[in-house]
Amino acid sequence: MATKQLASWALTLQFANLTTPVVDMAVKSLHNWGGCAIGGYHQPVVALVQDAMVPFAAPGNSSLLGIQGFYDAQHVALMNGLASHVDDYDDTHVDTPIHPSGPVASALLAFSEWKGNVTGKDFLTAFVAGLETEMKLGLSVYPEHYDIGWHITSTVGSVGAAVACGKLLNLTQEEMQFAISTASIQVIGMHSSFGTDQKPFHIGRAAQSGLFSAVMAKGGLHGALDGLEDKLGWVNVVSTRNNITDYFNILGKVWETTRNTFKPYPCDRVLHAPIDGWVQVRKQALEQGLSFSSITNITARTNPSVLFLTDNPDPQTGLAAKFSFYHAAAISLLIGQATPTQFSDEVVRNTTIKALSKKVSVIGDKTIPDYSAYVSVTFGNGIVLDTHVEHAIGSLANPLSDDYLRVKFLDQVSKQIGEENAQCAHMAFLNMVDLRDMRELTKTFTSKLTRRDSRRGDPSVYIM
Amino acid sequence: MATKQLASWALTLQFANLTTPVVDMAVKSLHNWGGCAIGGYHQPVVALVQDAMVPFAAPGNSSLLGIQGFYDAQHVALMNGLASHVDDYDDTHVDTPIHPSGPVASALLAFSEWKGNVTGKDFLTAFVAGLETEMKLGLSVYPEHYDIGWHITSTVGSVGAAVACGKLLNLTQEEMQFAISTASIQVIGMHSSFGTDQKPFHIGRAAQSGLFSAVMAKGGLHGALDGLEDKLGWVNVVSTRNNITDYFNILGKVWETTRNTFKPYPCDRVLHAPIDGWVQVRKQALEQGLSFSSITNITARTNPSVLFLTDNPDPQTGLAAKFSFYHAAAISLLIGQATPTQFSDEVVRNTTIKALSKKVSVIGDKTIPDYSAYVSVTFGNGIVLDTHVEHAIGSLANPLSDDYLRVKFLDQVSKQIGEENAQCAHMAFLNMVDLRDMRELTKTFTSKLTRRDSRRGDPSVYIM
Repeated sequence: MATKQLASWALTLQFANLTTPVVDMAVKSLHNWGGCAIGGYHQPVVALVQDAMVPFAAPGNSSLLGIQGFYDAQHVALMNGLASHVDDYDDTHVDTPIHPSGPVASALLAFSEWKGNVTGKDFLTAFVAGLETEMKLGLSVYPEHYDIGWHITSTVGSVGAAVACGKLLNLTQEEMQFAISTASIQVIGMHSSFGTDQKPFHIGRAAQSGLFSAVMAKGGLHGALDGLEDKLGWVNVVSTRNNITDYFNILGKVWETTRNTFKPYPCDRVLHAPIDGWVQVRKQALEQGLSFSSITNITARTNPSVLFLTDNPDPQTGLAAKFSFYHAAAISLLIGQATPTQFSDEVVRNTTIKALSKKVSVIGDKTIPDYSAYVSVTFGNGIVLDTHVEHAIGSLANPLSDDYLRVKFLDQVSKQIGEENAQCAHMAFLNMVDLRDMRELTKTFTSKLTRRDSRRGDPSVYIM
Repeated sequence: MATKQLASWALTLQFANLTTPVVDMAVKSLHNWGGCAIGGYHQPVVALVQDAMVPFAAPGNSSLLGIQGFYDAQHVALMNGLASHVDDYDDTHVDTPIHPSGPVASALLAFSEWKGNVTGKDFLTAFVAGLETEMKLGLSVYPEHYDIGWHITSTVGSVGAAVACGKLLNLTQEEMQFAISTASIQVIGMHSSFGTDQKPFHIGRAAQSGLFSAVMAKGGLHGALDGLEDKLGWVNVVSTRNNITDYFNILGKVWETTRNTFKPYPCDRVLHAPIDGWVQVRKQALEQGLSFSSITNITARTNPSVLFLTDNPDPQTGLAAKFSFYHAAAISLLIGQATPTQFSDEVVRNTTIKALSKKVSVIGDKTIPDYSAYVSVTFGNGIVLDTHVEHAIGSLANPLSDDYLRVKFLDQVSKQIGEENAQCAHMAFLNMVDLRDMRELTKTFTSKLTRRDSRRGDPSVYIM
């Protein structure tokens, strides 16, 4: 029943069913996603995947967001999905580690440009259908599914993207069930990829797989009608926990979308609370005139998930440093900031940063929630500064303000496409609800971008 | 070490290292795969996936095998992989239920046409590297990985395809490790798809994912160097069994390729032994002048895996009937043949076949290997005919003869592309070892094929 229940709920969902907080959070999520997707194009991995995919991509009218480039919807979903996650700066569902917008928005925007005449309201409704799909499905199997090593954002992401695109395709009930189950048997992403180029690829591939699954369902591809709950289907194959009935029964009654949060720092979310703490300690130390070179010891007590995810004492790249507790401590104390710049390869390899990171240790404590931390720093002469972060900035109880989100967006986006385009993009995302055609959104900034000098699909250039 | 060990072994493998039985079986495997891939284009699902993928495919010089159509290598890998498995007529590794050729050959042939100047010997060497990868990896996690619901052909297939293509790309050791781990985090296919359009899609998607993973690795995509054996990587995430060290230690010492077998009937392999038995009973009954309409009871004692995989008493489509013990019994007794024709939708819905299939029952017996069966049929007046099949035709101890394979190939292929083209294809596959460029193989028959009237990439045709 679960697959049918999800399909039926998603297909009947109307914009009028969305509460004001849901619409508000959906718009904020798309705005934050847009900033990450445009800004993410600065990372080398995005360019190299573009080069790798171009020989296989059709001409099209869907937009790469951070560089001038128009390809078919499926490959653009891949590229924008990858870019939106590469900085680990996107969003996080409070009750799971799902970063929900990436797979769904990347598929849906590329798809809407292809289809044409998708209104802002229809887009937002399909987007929410996709988000709710991801988070309800994730809750059904969390934490067992995640703890065994699956990257839950992409494993549920293909299904969310299929539901969102399937809604815009006006699939029938059965077609939507097929779209869901076809997406669900493409399970993307494991923790072994964390800190590498593969991690953002998960999100792009999930977007692409979901979009294609919906298109194939529209074209008549049949499959399991009960793909999610079948005894040899998704939930039972990928998890030892199965709460799908409970969570799908409250689809549309409890909105997970309102429990989405935005990252203040471009790194794994479990680092946000200790970073807040060290930035506070840095301020105290500056006020007291203490020397950072005198630091002998840096500690934190946090939720043990920090050790599971970020116990990398010697990262060699910016992407790896996003999963290094040690690097996070060093930049927070020495620079007092954690923006994409502090997670560049150059900063990661800086010898002063590296030296300080060797003085960091961490104690896992199950009684501490993952949005809290106790940090402590010992300076010369045994002076200890410490602090307790109860609710990290960006957590549900301490959300990013509209102003923070605006500054975050403009900072990421201006660096990639210039200030004027960034302002256009910022306004376009915030005002999307009134658009008559989602193609208007991307037109406001992509037409003015610079074309990247990509190695074009000639195999003699590429594969020899 | 496992990922590194596999990468190193695959990269150093030379044609001269292959024993004669390995080369012979590799050629037979490609020949059998070619017949299935060309013949598979008769199934409607192949045409509908072609329509669905065309808007996303680049122009290219890789060949759809059963119809005139040239696209980029990745989409052709998808299409030929799908077609090669759709009739469930391909090949099977004796020690696992892996159908090894599909993912690797589909990726490798499409890739070789794109790259150009790939000799028959280089192709065969890369093909064997891919096959051995799939089967060693599968053995490392079998049966637990399969029994929980994964379609092992596609879950190991993406890795096999990546290794094969990576070898032709002359990847470095590290690049090959990245190609392997990127392929491994795209886990395709579950049993819930069996008997539906999704099942052959698994194989195509695995081929496509593997090919793309190798290309991305060549382009510089980094990832886990130890993706297979990482504590949060492939083996540990998808299986509770982990014998990877034992099996990878005998790479190149024990050749799994020589333990490949070919399907005599286009349906799940566990049905082959009882089909043999019922065909024998049919002959006895004809000799004795018994009436098939008098049959009151049909039974078989077989390995219990039959009940796990083929317990579908009322299939509605040809694809579903490939996983129906009941349909298999009815066609074997009433028609005495099991070719693609007996697994068409029309035959499946035939009322006489359906009526007889209601009289079938099965007893699982763990002492009986899956290549054996005891069958028994009760006719009017209580006359019982029974037989014991010790080694089903097509099993390792009773392999298909060269003549059987030739007839099988020509039968499948002639129906799709005509007798003359079929003869050309037959000879081209059998003589591939001496080719200077694998493009010569496909040219012998694809240039003369008919172009299918496909709905071309205009979204207004396709998605509205």
